[in-house]
Amino acid sequence: MNLFRPNIQRMTPYVPGEQPGIGERVIKINTNENPYPPSPAAMKVLREIDGEQFRRYPQPTAQAFRVAAGAALGYDADWILPGNGSDDLLTMIFRACTEPGRAAAYPMPTYTLYRTLAGIQDAEVIEVPFDDDFNLPADALAAAGAPLTLVANPNAPSGTLFTPDELEALAGRVKGLMVVDEAYVDFAESSAIDLPRRCPNVIVLRTLSKGYSMAGLRLGFGLARPEILTGLMTVKDSYNVDVVACAVGAAAIADQAYKNECAAKVRSSRAALAGQLEAMGFAVWPSQANFLLVRPTTVGAREIYEGLKKRGILIRYFQQPRLEDKLRISIGTDQDNAQLVRAIREILSSVDK
Amino acid sequence: MNLFRPNIQRMTPYVPGEQPGIGERVIKINTNENPYPPSPAAMKVLREIDGEQFRRYPQPTAQAFRVAAGAALGYDADWILPGNGSDDLLTMIFRACTEPGRAAAYPMPTYTLYRTLAGIQDAEVIEVPFDDDFNLPADALAAAGAPLTLVANPNAPSGTLFTPDELEALAGRVKGLMVVDEAYVDFAESSAIDLPRRCPNVIVLRTLSKGYSMAGLRLGFGLARPEILTGLMTVKDSYNVDVVACAVGAAAIADQAYKNECAAKVRSSRAALAGQLEAMGFAVWPSQANFLLVRPTTVGAREIYEGLKKRGILIRYFQQPRLEDKLRISIGTDQDNAQLVRAIREILSSVDK
Repeated sequence: MNLFRPNIQRMTPYVPGEQPGIGERVIKINTNENPYPPSPAAMKVLREIDGEQFRRYPQPTAQAFRVAAGAALGYDADWILPGNGSDDLLTMIFRACTEPGRAAAYPMPTYTLYRTLAGIQDAEVIEVPFDDDFNLPADALAAAGAPLTLVANPNAPSGTLFTPDELEALAGRVKGLMVVDEAYVDFAESSAIDLPRRCPNVIVLRTLSKGYSMAGLRLGFGLARPEILTGLMTVKDSYNVDVVACAVGAAAIADQAYKNECAAKVRSSRAALAGQLEAMGFAVWPSQANFLLVRPTTVGAREIYEGLKKRGILIRYFQQPRLEDKLRISIGTDQDNAQLVRAIREILSSVDK
Repeated sequence: MNLFRPNIQRMTPYVPGEQPGIGERVIKINTNENPYPPSPAAMKVLREIDGEQFRRYPQPTAQAFRVAAGAALGYDADWILPGNGSDDLLTMIFRACTEPGRAAAYPMPTYTLYRTLAGIQDAEVIEVPFDDDFNLPADALAAAGAPLTLVANPNAPSGTLFTPDELEALAGRVKGLMVVDEAYVDFAESSAIDLPRRCPNVIVLRTLSKGYSMAGLRLGFGLARPEILTGLMTVKDSYNVDVVACAVGAAAIADQAYKNECAAKVRSSRAALAGQLEAMGFAVWPSQANFLLVRPTTVGAREIYEGLKKRGILIRYFQQPRLEDKLRISIGTDQDNAQLVRAIREILSSVDK
């Protein structure tokens, strides 16, 4: 008996990066987690959560978080729509905007979840190739005329950033909703945060998984005109954000100073690691995120990935076109990065022999 | 600019029950929350969660919870698929099974989210009317031949229960997947928990929102053959269950003794309240859930709903066919229920004058 829709039967699910078991001693720099702990102010709120808050349903729009996020970013609360991670916002957007005959367009390679979400909707995708420097292919995206256009800023897995001006220009040229997915923007030097004010068709996505060290809590949000958010609420799970994420997330986003301090450390480690890898002969793309896309030259990418795994270091290898010769390395602590560099040196020299 | 799919533009979103603000002093018996606090063992686990767990992504299938739920219910862990509330499981099921030409069938009135989720998929619904005693309309559901059939057991908002035998017989007659949505089953005298072992097309849904007093945490799960769950994972958010829900939920479901003790208190209060309301002239349907569906006879349902609201007591009034003369009252503590009875008496006598 075929229980599922034909397009679902054909699909292979999105594969998240490996997660080691609790207690496994590995250096985990494969899923772009922040190496620093969450804000102490946020952890203090966690300690205060009581059974009465668990017993009741959450407030359906996580209002306390909306207010805190709006205050942190200079927007009214009704311009903010929280979700169970920014993946939940992407799900809402694909469910609301795409179907057979209503395609999604985005540059490639990028976050592979876009393709999965389009597939679930049985919607076409228009995948516009990046050039080798990952410049924004604005003409081709505009020409696609898709009801949904997505740009990750900084892009993953390249780490490359677009300017607010080029994103605003693109928003004026696309036909439907434009998503600027800023999951990694807390480590970047500019952002599209002002675009929703000026562009009626732009939604900016943010997450607390990276900059705020809360990947385990599942909290992200969309920032757009209230009319857009009202449309998305039609497809939102009634209680998509739990009471813990709402309360702890509100405290985390209010603590901008702590987040900025951690992000500054990551940026500094990123620059140091990029230099060391270049010195070892790797090509390194200029990253504005908390990871580096690199291409080894003397040894294959997969070989390095496997050599590191044997040594208890997890990085990300994507078996897909244009990425199979590259590696994505999340920025760890300086100690993590030093161990990584030592291990790579070992692998390179063992191959030399 | 119309940013959304035509079917989304036409929709009105599911409206959850009212949630009073924090600090508002109301008796809240409108959204079927458990009046008792969550398991102390579960709250202890909450206290132990640290920043390191927040920093990392969760395990994608919430394995620790699967193991605990399987152990509690006598199933292997791979028969369990956790979600961000059982609403998340319903979302996965509708996304995987329904589309234009693939309808969902269910008896009416029932949980109104089914219609909303079908609408998001632009799928037809086949709504089979219950008789006035809420017997299972098995012939009509089987005749519908829908790729997805849903039965809430106990049904909401009637509270009426079906026997495992009649559900098993129905499963053999429907054409596709059959969902037995057991959100309220922890207060009932039987369940369909054994059906997945015998019926290859049945998924049983459970939640920790009601029996386990954790509506705020968002945790539910589906129980079915692994082949069914593998299909649903195709449409699952990669990290749909956060680390808090996984860890705290595992402790909660392991503490069956505490859950059973609270459920017994609710059942006892339910019997007492049903008797008092019948004594005041209400028709009361035989409930196996933590709420009562009642029909006032001397005063209109809406009038009682509004009179109670003025007195700081929230119950549920559904403005929809066959329910507009009825009220759904969640079972509170005995003290809540006593205040409710006093307030209804006041309303009835003020109208008498």
